[in-house]
Amino acid sequence: MSTDATHDPALQSWVASANAAATDFPVQNLPFGRFRRAGSGEPWRIGVAIGDQVLDLLLAAGRGSWPADVAPALAPLAAGDLNRFMAMGPDVRRKVRAALSSALTAGSPQQAALASCLLPQARAEMALPCTITDYTDFYTGIHHATAVGKLFRPDNPLLPNYKWVPIGYHGRASSIVVSGTPVRRPLGQTMPPGATTPSVGPSQRLDYELELGFLVGTGNLMGEPIPIAEAEDHLFGVTLFNDWSARDIQPWEYQPLGPFLAKNFASTLSPWVVTMEALAPFRAPFARPAGDPDPLPYLDSAANRRQGLLDIRLEVWLQTATMREAGQAAVQLSSGGAAEAAYWTPAQLVAHHTISGCNLQPGDLFGSGTLSGPQATQAGSLLELTQGGKQPITLPNGESRSFLADGDTLILRGFCERAGARRIGLGECAGTVVAAPLLAR
Amino acid sequence: MSTDATHDPALQSWVASANAAATDFPVQNLPFGRFRRAGSGEPWRIGVAIGDQVLDLLLAAGRGSWPADVAPALAPLAAGDLNRFMAMGPDVRRKVRAALSSALTAGSPQQAALASCLLPQARAEMALPCTITDYTDFYTGIHHATAVGKLFRPDNPLLPNYKWVPIGYHGRASSIVVSGTPVRRPLGQTMPPGATTPSVGPSQRLDYELELGFLVGTGNLMGEPIPIAEAEDHLFGVTLFNDWSARDIQPWEYQPLGPFLAKNFASTLSPWVVTMEALAPFRAPFARPAGDPDPLPYLDSAANRRQGLLDIRLEVWLQTATMREAGQAAVQLSSGGAAEAAYWTPAQLVAHHTISGCNLQPGDLFGSGTLSGPQATQAGSLLELTQGGKQPITLPNGESRSFLADGDTLILRGFCERAGARRIGLGECAGTVVAAPLLAR
Repeated sequence: MSTDATHDPALQSWVASANAAATDFPVQNLPFGRFRRAGSGEPWRIGVAIGDQVLDLLLAAGRGSWPADVAPALAPLAAGDLNRFMAMGPDVRRKVRAALSSALTAGSPQQAALASCLLPQARAEMALPCTITDYTDFYTGIHHATAVGKLFRPDNPLLPNYKWVPIGYHGRASSIVVSGTPVRRPLGQTMPPGATTPSVGPSQRLDYELELGFLVGTGNLMGEPIPIAEAEDHLFGVTLFNDWSARDIQPWEYQPLGPFLAKNFASTLSPWVVTMEALAPFRAPFARPAGDPDPLPYLDSAANRRQGLLDIRLEVWLQTATMREAGQAAVQLSSGGAAEAAYWTPAQLVAHHTISGCNLQPGDLFGSGTLSGPQATQAGSLLELTQGGKQPITLPNGESRSFLADGDTLILRGFCERAGARRIGLGECAGTVVAAPLLAR
Repeated sequence: MSTDATHDPALQSWVASANAAATDFPVQNLPFGRFRRAGSGEPWRIGVAIGDQVLDLLLAAGRGSWPADVAPALAPLAAGDLNRFMAMGPDVRRKVRAALSSALTAGSPQQAALASCLLPQARAEMALPCTITDYTDFYTGIHHATAVGKLFRPDNPLLPNYKWVPIGYHGRASSIVVSGTPVRRPLGQTMPPGATTPSVGPSQRLDYELELGFLVGTGNLMGEPIPIAEAEDHLFGVTLFNDWSARDIQPWEYQPLGPFLAKNFASTLSPWVVTMEALAPFRAPFARPAGDPDPLPYLDSAANRRQGLLDIRLEVWLQTATMREAGQAAVQLSSGGAAEAAYWTPAQLVAHHTISGCNLQPGDLFGSGTLSGPQATQAGSLLELTQGGKQPITLPNGESRSFLADGDTLILRGFCERAGARRIGLGECAGTVVAAPLLAR
């Protein structure tokens, strides 16, 4: 495991809230996001989350004092352009991280200058952290793929390609929104069981999907695959990601070319990108269960075997409109771990995506696919938790859900904990379902 | 059919080459493209094709004299930003078209000023006409869907959803390239017939797909479907489009989520966007064959029935490396018509894509899907022309092809002809296959 001084669990920040045991954003994390003062209408800025504050990098670039090799990298950050910073690559990112870590650590001579560059997160409005160029959704959750496959093919749930090919497909980039954006229930065609003509109307089986998002930093030239040994250098960081899905639209539309309207109405991204560097203490070995095939050579490397997986704890929470009106907090629907859920590592996704010569760009997003754990209670979607809607779940206040109702707020949370390391978190990825539009004629 | 003075077949241009009977670019066409002087390294500019020349809109905006309501629309064009012009909508576009038509017509008082704004197309280097934001590929070619389906399911080639749902899926925007860009043969996983473990190597079944590209002009807000009656106002124009496909990679990877690496290594777009206005004289009625279901209400309108289809003639040409070395011109592989091939109209694609609430943006690209005619000789891919590779075609020089070989140049051409209208063309969409990269370990 490669860690450095920025991970030292003893580090404390002069930002007091960053030292709270439960914060997602201690000085060991330092995720990037795009924000502005709520209601200001100002241009978006790049900031770094620290405790319950945001360090404004436009202000900090001007007021702090930075090493000569860090200052040029602050220019795109000060300009609010995370994509351009992402394109500068991992070495530049590591230098900026080290400088920010030092500047925000208790006792830094920069405290006086940078204290004036903080904004409480409660007063910040967040945007997507970067422009999402292309979006690819993978299907790395083997327990999810098995559970969903069982609903259709009880005796043979996993297709023959699953253990050889990191299955993925292209998704819609324009409808990716930041956490907090309302999600409108989609209209669409469905073919109800027993019907002979399709119906058109609001989806009746609206679901969430618990995923991680991997953001590409540096790309590759078209026609030049990225070898797996170099793959992680092309990743910038990790977010939470909810790939909302209309389970009744998908079965009717998806043959033979895959999901389309069932997925493209909205996908929600958490606002803070936790860098690959911050995640360094939280890696897990990659190994195949006995009897499963080894990865093909282009998907295999010593480093990938040693620490290819991400050890991130994941949780799904729901607050219905009734709960909200009664002042009741969200309830947990499930929890699990990314490393137990994923059959393929982020590096394998990069190597596979580019083996064809496909070119990646700074700001491309990969979804992990739904990260359901091996236990039924660890499922990352209602489709699984309710057995395809047949066994509704009952909430503590007596409400039940087969799928999501209008007014439901769905919240994903993620964090990393390990002995000897400071806990870090990914923050929240939340969205509230609003009613479908009227069907125009 | 709504046509206006810009379509008058009697109009002649003071640019002599625009009056040649065979030109794709008479004064009735006026397509937009992005160009610069070849080898100059200058920033890209927007131009309009006229005969064998390009009218440079950066120069023309300054040197011409333009109506007061047209001048503001020339600003994004002069800046080389077609997306921003696309976003201005159809009314602005029509005014610019009328002004350009008038200025380029024989006898225009602007001739002296604008003659100095021309560059021969032979000396221009072309880029993609705009930034492609998101790319969706549809599957409107019913004869293609039937022929491909027959290879897998001889008794039941069309899936039950085909006549209800305009089938589409999201594609890769980053690897869309302009005509003339070499296309590198992809590496990928295949599962050869009878094998029990997959192989990795260069695709052995590389194919083209003859498609039209529809570029979105104005978008919609997320959650607000575009009614079919307004759908065409959201389209900017039409191009040729080659959706290169690796037929051996696709069958192994595409279940259950659709094509991925088999398609994402490259797609080629023609450089000139022919506007919806230029195509107004070349529309065809939309009707369903007897026994087929009527379109659902959200996919149906009087205007769509009257003239929803595009009457464009399409051709596929091939020049192998051997032919090129021998000085032999390309040979025609097939020809057909877009209106006979397409089961769904462009307006139906817009209405369907947005019924879920998915937001379109200026610069989004829709592929039509492979436009094969009803006859076997009208097929838009080698997969169909060679019966899945089983019946290679023989070329006039004695070479044969099941699929494309390295060095092959594949050229799509398209044009519109109708009594009482001036012929216009879409130009060419060409690409040459180059060898796959070495497989890295």
